[in-house]
Amino acid sequence: MYIPTLEDMLAARGRIEPHIHRTPVLTSRMLNELTGAELFFKCESFQKAGAFKARGASNAVFGLSDAQAAKGVATHSSGNHGTCLSYAAGRRGIPCTVVMPRTAPQAKKDAVRGYGGRVVECEPSTSSREAVFAEVVAESGAEFVHPYNDPRVIAGQATCSAELIEQVADLDAVIAPIGGGGMVSGTCLTLSNLAPAIQIYAAEPLNADDAARSFRAGHIIADDAPDTVADGLKVPLKELTWHFVHNHVTDILTATEEEIVDAMKLIWKRMKIVMEPSSAVPLATIIKNPEVFAGKRVGVIITGGNVDLDKLPWNT
Amino acid sequence: MYIPTLEDMLAARGRIEPHIHRTPVLTSRMLNELTGAELFFKCESFQKAGAFKARGASNAVFGLSDAQAAKGVATHSSGNHGTCLSYAAGRRGIPCTVVMPRTAPQAKKDAVRGYGGRVVECEPSTSSREAVFAEVVAESGAEFVHPYNDPRVIAGQATCSAELIEQVADLDAVIAPIGGGGMVSGTCLTLSNLAPAIQIYAAEPLNADDAARSFRAGHIIADDAPDTVADGLKVPLKELTWHFVHNHVTDILTATEEEIVDAMKLIWKRMKIVMEPSSAVPLATIIKNPEVFAGKRVGVIITGGNVDLDKLPWNT
Repeated sequence: MYIPTLEDMLAARGRIEPHIHRTPVLTSRMLNELTGAELFFKCESFQKAGAFKARGASNAVFGLSDAQAAKGVATHSSGNHGTCLSYAAGRRGIPCTVVMPRTAPQAKKDAVRGYGGRVVECEPSTSSREAVFAEVVAESGAEFVHPYNDPRVIAGQATCSAELIEQVADLDAVIAPIGGGGMVSGTCLTLSNLAPAIQIYAAEPLNADDAARSFRAGHIIADDAPDTVADGLKVPLKELTWHFVHNHVTDILTATEEEIVDAMKLIWKRMKIVMEPSSAVPLATIIKNPEVFAGKRVGVIITGGNVDLDKLPWNT
Repeated sequence: MYIPTLEDMLAARGRIEPHIHRTPVLTSRMLNELTGAELFFKCESFQKAGAFKARGASNAVFGLSDAQAAKGVATHSSGNHGTCLSYAAGRRGIPCTVVMPRTAPQAKKDAVRGYGGRVVECEPSTSSREAVFAEVVAESGAEFVHPYNDPRVIAGQATCSAELIEQVADLDAVIAPIGGGGMVSGTCLTLSNLAPAIQIYAAEPLNADDAARSFRAGHIIADDAPDTVADGLKVPLKELTWHFVHNHVTDILTATEEEIVDAMKLIWKRMKIVMEPSSAVPLATIIKNPEVFAGKRVGVIITGGNVDLDKLPWNT
């Protein structure tokens, strides 16, 4: 298992710079008053393709040799990673195949295709996904880019907090949502090297709290198909992300579905930004645990903005 | 009738600078491809109190003498002007009274109160509103700050395009929604003086196209209670705003309700910002009239972000 290093992050930064946005940091006086903390929202919702995953995907795609690149890239993801890999492959002009359950939302399939990628459908089961994906790779020779358990991807996500600490001085803590742990691992990679005094928190839906339970147990616990409105956070930790979480995270906090939806609506209403339920989990946990964050300067990663406007969680 | 001047705008800029945001300009490659124009969205949705009207309200409030200020300010508005006047008065620590129909949405009343203002309810009729408002002013001696037909307000709104032309070079055109005409008048004031080559367009709902008809007729036409999803744009032009519109606007374009809602959803989806239906009217007219804007660099004013998240127009 190769653990990505600070040098990998720095190389990623140079490599992906032409393909990603340096996203803005927004603040809200009202949310500061509500929480007693000073919050700095790093808005990856404004990132290319609408999510921080454009960073890791771009790093993987633009790090390929020409020979590898010619055969394209492939992944299985019905979320932002598929869209972002398609985005990055489109920028390099190489093929991208995303294996998705045929039951995935049409909008997700359209997003992959919108950037030029190919969607190959499988049945909504792990066995079908693995069989179809193996076939795709065997046939094309495409390079597999895992959504998070990949050093290239983690090094790419790590560029986000490198920007954040340039944009905001003297942070006491950074908090990000955790699903598979790609963003949190990247945050650990950068901060443990460049700003080790900053505490790193992860925020997780209580309904999909496998990372929190793993953290307390000291080994990876994976749940089968947890259900949460924060649909980007259902996947389990893997070895690489467990390495970073286990070694560098201060705590993993959880929030209920209602707390997540309330926090999401509050951010939309007060900050006027469109972001995903997953991105609201950190604020939900900050509101719930004021004693942890009061008086601190806290970076909050808003991970993505790709939400179905026809199915907002407070309207269902 | 006093016509505000460039000097008034410059004075406003210095006066309100501590109380407002220099709002960001966002771009979208996808929307540029869709329209064939290069669009620069000036996002007053991120403005203090959620709308450009914080500019004009702050200019009026902070321009008052201490003696006048002690008696407070008053207005009648069930929209952003009431909220923004309350915001500005709160910053100066003076009383603010907003007369609103008792049928106005609770959220609008709460917004005024949230910044410390007082809401006085009237019946939902012009006669009741005028009677109640006269009583408020007689009793308090408060200074009336009209939502748009006021030189202080127009000079304040004019600071928006002064920022825009600093942020974006070589614009060919600027387009803003038109209701009473405060933002458009401010835009005319600044651009006619500082960048007279830039064409100024106004965008209006077809369902409330009194400004467009006024523009063609050469005199003010006021409709009685037009109905449109762009609820900030129902009010008619008045003498001061007519002066600017009549003298400096190139054209007033209109869009249907469906076109407005489609453009709103498109902006939310692609630009990830929460903004009002009124703010979507310019993009709707740009999409509808590609021959007017193709190949041009166009500033688009996103006027505000105060929308009822429980009643989004595509969900009703």
